[in-house]
Amino acid sequence: MNLLRHIRACNAWEPANFLPLLHDGVRVGLVRRDNAEQLRRFPKVFDVGNATVRIVATGGRKELTARIDEAIDALVAHGILAKYRHEYFAIAPRWGAPPRFDLDRGAVPFFGARSYGVHLNGWQRDGSALKMWIGRRAADKQVAPDKLDNLVAGGIGRDHGVAETLLKEGEEEAAMPSALTARAISAGAISYRMGMPDGLRDDVLFIYDIETPKEFMPRNTDGEIVSFALMDAAEVLTRVRDTDDFKFNVNLVIIDFALRHGVIAPTDPAYLDLVTGLRRPLD
Amino acid sequence: MNLLRHIRACNAWEPANFLPLLHDGVRVGLVRRDNAEQLRRFPKVFDVGNATVRIVATGGRKELTARIDEAIDALVAHGILAKYRHEYFAIAPRWGAPPRFDLDRGAVPFFGARSYGVHLNGWQRDGSALKMWIGRRAADKQVAPDKLDNLVAGGIGRDHGVAETLLKEGEEEAAMPSALTARAISAGAISYRMGMPDGLRDDVLFIYDIETPKEFMPRNTDGEIVSFALMDAAEVLTRVRDTDDFKFNVNLVIIDFALRHGVIAPTDPAYLDLVTGLRRPLD
Repeated sequence: MNLLRHIRACNAWEPANFLPLLHDGVRVGLVRRDNAEQLRRFPKVFDVGNATVRIVATGGRKELTARIDEAIDALVAHGILAKYRHEYFAIAPRWGAPPRFDLDRGAVPFFGARSYGVHLNGWQRDGSALKMWIGRRAADKQVAPDKLDNLVAGGIGRDHGVAETLLKEGEEEAAMPSALTARAISAGAISYRMGMPDGLRDDVLFIYDIETPKEFMPRNTDGEIVSFALMDAAEVLTRVRDTDDFKFNVNLVIIDFALRHGVIAPTDPAYLDLVTGLRRPLD
Repeated sequence: MNLLRHIRACNAWEPANFLPLLHDGVRVGLVRRDNAEQLRRFPKVFDVGNATVRIVATGGRKELTARIDEAIDALVAHGILAKYRHEYFAIAPRWGAPPRFDLDRGAVPFFGARSYGVHLNGWQRDGSALKMWIGRRAADKQVAPDKLDNLVAGGIGRDHGVAETLLKEGEEEAAMPSALTARAISAGAISYRMGMPDGLRDDVLFIYDIETPKEFMPRNTDGEIVSFALMDAAEVLTRVRDTDDFKFNVNLVIIDFALRHGVIAPTDPAYLDLVTGLRRPLD
């Protein structure tokens, strides 16, 4: 087994099956052709053409969000969209640009809109050994049940910034005091675009590292993580290489950590494919 | 001024002006059209077509290197190639693949062959401040005289591996004992492709970080660096942003360091363009 397979799996999608979703001539998503057909039900909101899906509803962010929510309501009622997550993501053409509208998290892959998350690598040195905190996801999680995860991870909702999401998730997922989480250091980002049963994930994950103090023991408070273990980083990487025990995108976060902390050596023939593969150019 | 301009400058080239250099059907370089014309002098070594330059000389790595060296000798005699560096780089289609031939470092841009280097960020914590060791290049350097540089940097010659080059350059450029340099941690790589007066740089830089002990004072021994200073990392980044005081590719190494060590925050609207722009996909 090898590490690159995880990068390939997170970037497996068929561009020819997707139409750009445009708002005011700017792309804000990628809609799979079968999903686009479903949007023909809402001609006052979407104009489904041969090469594009255009948002034709007018108004500002709030009005547009309401019009699109009505369409999502109908898709849910027809059993086409599985469920709401009742958590909104802000949808913008690019990072730092003003959001055009908000989308229920559950509908984000249907529209192939870009979403942003934050992942925190917790690490410690034990003599010469580098250790990482690894969590196990609850068996009832909708996404990747029972899989291994980072110390803290979460999607960035419309009402929270990057650092704020990290503080919130740190508290909920690992009972980290905010004074501790505030010591986390931003360390870059990874990006991938992955076909899903319900559409497409076009994800950017902001990566943080934190050296956790010896006395800190993570403890989950929201039921999403059942246990934490402090594992040798080299063993974590071997497990990423040889198994599918980790959540699909957590493999990428760990490969990135291993590259940045010397756990993967430049002599690895795949080194540069890993370095470049973790960050697909954003368009 | 902004940081992205350095990434753009290191990736400025005109693909239409270059022909792939092929060996046994595999690309090993990119030859500018005017340079390709010069290679018509050597029909036993190069077949210059409309869309490709093919190496037609036969033999193994050693023989091929000798044939190409004869051509380079003639180009130097004709004043077309400026000078030899008398240092050979191994030329392979990709990292980890067996080299096809070796090329004098001075001729690498003429053929647009990929070359590899290593850069070492030396850093220290001073209370809450992050400091970086910055060197100033000698005024008589052929490339980027008088510009600011990393603690240690160098090209990876055919006879040295990545870590070995780091040890050698650490000793020559900063009088670093090998036991200290061995504590450097590999932290990824950056890549860029840049048009030059004599051709094209298709460069990959392996990045290392080292936390230097308080008592360590770098001291140059080979005359290539005239002085070192320990500078505040935030000030280094400001200087990268606002000036051209640093060597062209060192700007990229410092941006990468700043991203990995939290000196640039994810809230920066250019954050993702920087993260993805530092590592062009290799082809």
